[in-house]
Amino acid sequence: MTNKQFSNTEQTVFEELLIHRRDVRGNRFLSSPIAEDTLRKILHAAELSPSVGFSQPWEFVIIKNQQTKQAVADVFAVENTKAEKLFSDEKRKEYAQLKLEGILKTPVNIAVFYRQPDGPVLGQTSMPDMGEYSVVCAIQNMWLMARALNIGMGWVSILDPEKVKDILKIPEERKDKLKLVAYLCFGHVDEFLNQPELEILKWDTRKPISDYLHQESYTQQ
Amino acid sequence: MTNKQFSNTEQTVFEELLIHRRDVRGNRFLSSPIAEDTLRKILHAAELSPSVGFSQPWEFVIIKNQQTKQAVADVFAVENTKAEKLFSDEKRKEYAQLKLEGILKTPVNIAVFYRQPDGPVLGQTSMPDMGEYSVVCAIQNMWLMARALNIGMGWVSILDPEKVKDILKIPEERKDKLKLVAYLCFGHVDEFLNQPELEILKWDTRKPISDYLHQESYTQQ
Repeated sequence: MTNKQFSNTEQTVFEELLIHRRDVRGNRFLSSPIAEDTLRKILHAAELSPSVGFSQPWEFVIIKNQQTKQAVADVFAVENTKAEKLFSDEKRKEYAQLKLEGILKTPVNIAVFYRQPDGPVLGQTSMPDMGEYSVVCAIQNMWLMARALNIGMGWVSILDPEKVKDILKIPEERKDKLKLVAYLCFGHVDEFLNQPELEILKWDTRKPISDYLHQESYTQQ
Repeated sequence: MTNKQFSNTEQTVFEELLIHRRDVRGNRFLSSPIAEDTLRKILHAAELSPSVGFSQPWEFVIIKNQQTKQAVADVFAVENTKAEKLFSDEKRKEYAQLKLEGILKTPVNIAVFYRQPDGPVLGQTSMPDMGEYSVVCAIQNMWLMARALNIGMGWVSILDPEKVKDILKIPEERKDKLKLVAYLCFGHVDEFLNQPELEILKWDTRKPISDYLHQESYTQQ
């Protein structure tokens, strides 16, 4: 048993961490390497993550090889061209100017997979997506730990998951059991922006909390 | 622009927070109320969460009414009975002894929904689950902020999402657009355990990192 009580000062440190965490894009990353001890701490944050039924349903692939990154960057380019076409004329112009990934520029990429269980998992029987959600909790822990270590992280999602599985040589018989949840880029940065880049660029605006906060039920609003 | 650099001491505070965060069950919760300012800080952690394409696709329902909680607890009871039957004989006996929720015992429950977008969302075009993943990032932020405030959180997932929607009076025309991601219980605790409860009870064991960490690709192991 333990009764660790966090102080106001410690709580404020965590609030600062939330405030200063950013999704980092290619234009901010430096190519200098990440120390092994730093990478180990980021992975340790994933180990300390909650998981439904203590199932720990995550798999991580650490990628440093430039050829592998190039193959993933090629998949991004194809998907990004498709994505651009989905937006209205005005937004499409804006979209085309955005730098949305740092795959090649960062020294370390990490692909994160959800591993489907073989039997029932405690807590996942009524809500089957709980396993994936555990993997996302681990990613958020890694993201915050990276920021605490002054390392930037960018989450790349404009990817065809099946092509990424091929690039990472997932054996045929395991492909159905593994789902790509995230492709993460880690690196030192020149600076961290003080707002989300998409907010600065006015891609979208921050919603007031009243837009999405309900008291007791929906119809009591 | 900002260049906030976190110190080793601050990084250690965050690591301590990860180490001491727990999924809290009914037997540990106290029924004493949560101060409004504390609740506001927990919700602020959600506001500071990353979201795909800055879409902020979350909705929160704060529940303090005991009748509403009782209705949700009834849904839990039905689902938990179903769940128990899915496990093998030995596990079933263990399962039946577990206390898996603190719905009625905690002063505040928060239901968290993902709101489906009306049009394309930047970053969600190739991986449609990214919106839900953003909501999970917000939940992990809330979980850690609660712990930093010495408040326990328990994530209840043994629920029929459609029944929870009915209890929370989601209008018929919005039901298809809203997905229940989590039902969270918040309260003060007598103490925080120093390991996951399911690890202490030997429901499952902690995996060595070598079980789920790959270098460069799957077949290079």
